[in-house]
Amino acid sequence: MEALKERIRREGRNLGDGILKVDSFINHQVDPQLMMVVGQELAKQFASLGVTKVLTAEISGIAPALTTALALGVPVVYARKTKPITMPECVYRQTAPSHTKGRRVELMVSPEFLHPSDRILIVDDFLATGQTISALVKLVEEAGAKLVGIGVLIEKSFEGGRKRLERLGVPIKSLVDIADMSDGRIVFAE
Amino acid sequence: MEALKERIRREGRNLGDGILKVDSFINHQVDPQLMMVVGQELAKQFASLGVTKVLTAEISGIAPALTTALALGVPVVYARKTKPITMPECVYRQTAPSHTKGRRVELMVSPEFLHPSDRILIVDDFLATGQTISALVKLVEEAGAKLVGIGVLIEKSFEGGRKRLERLGVPIKSLVDIADMSDGRIVFAE
Repeated sequence: MEALKERIRREGRNLGDGILKVDSFINHQVDPQLMMVVGQELAKQFASLGVTKVLTAEISGIAPALTTALALGVPVVYARKTKPITMPECVYRQTAPSHTKGRRVELMVSPEFLHPSDRILIVDDFLATGQTISALVKLVEEAGAKLVGIGVLIEKSFEGGRKRLERLGVPIKSLVDIADMSDGRIVFAE
Repeated sequence: MEALKERIRREGRNLGDGILKVDSFINHQVDPQLMMVVGQELAKQFASLGVTKVLTAEISGIAPALTTALALGVPVVYARKTKPITMPECVYRQTAPSHTKGRRVELMVSPEFLHPSDRILIVDDFLATGQTISALVKLVEEAGAKLVGIGVLIEKSFEGGRKRLERLGVPIKSLVDIADMSDGRIVFAE
């Protein structure tokens, strides 16, 4: 997707160790217009799958998940990393390592908002090793809901996350694929 | 604002101690259509102030801040509570107590995204005691930017936050005002 690729070319920073800094339009400052465009594009790619809910992980997934859900006309649920007092005692709970925080994080969803009848589209900002998305998939499975697709803005295909997720047998779409970040470069896949 | 008030009437839960649970449409599951409507309404109320950026706090502020910023045609910045490795060493930093987490949280913004030339509209989901918003105001002041307004979805006026913020001399708008939550009730202000 050219708009996103162009933005990464212009403002993305390769910080080494596979870390792509996109803080000026996705991860700290957010460009709402760009989020609308990427949300509409993801919604188009999964339009025929009968999605009833979009699931993401706080924090950076919220913006693109919200605009995708808006375009699909469904609610979005964000898995929480800390438990607010409004959350019931008994929740679906998984853990995943956080690349940008350097520790494992919990991901929790209240059973109030994931049901066996739900058809879930997972949306996140990045697909890297696939471990965060795998934890979201396990939350969907815990709830007995049906996973129907996975959509991300930026895939770092050199980190192999897609392999981890392919066994699920659902479509996995990324709007931009980065094939190589060695030697300070940002190389897009053909 | 009737749409939001109606939703609180239908799905809001008074958990005691002034805690209003709105997890089914704002704080865990989010209704994107409702967020668009509230964002457009907030944008309308601050349309004449030359806002250059919307500032909020992660996590629950992100959705309404994004839609408000979309309607205003400006970026949104969310203050971070934990520091990702993409953030520079030196950041603007304040702390605020979290009502729903039961501890103090840090709020950090990178100097990359708040500038002296910025005219900032702060948007958040709740105005309760005003302490989170006060911390955001201090971040704006640290950056030398100009605060031009404060907009929230739900004000709990019985917690007195507006008094704390009125000294700032900027317009403070809430879409719904809850005057009383004692004895399990949710009483809207006239």
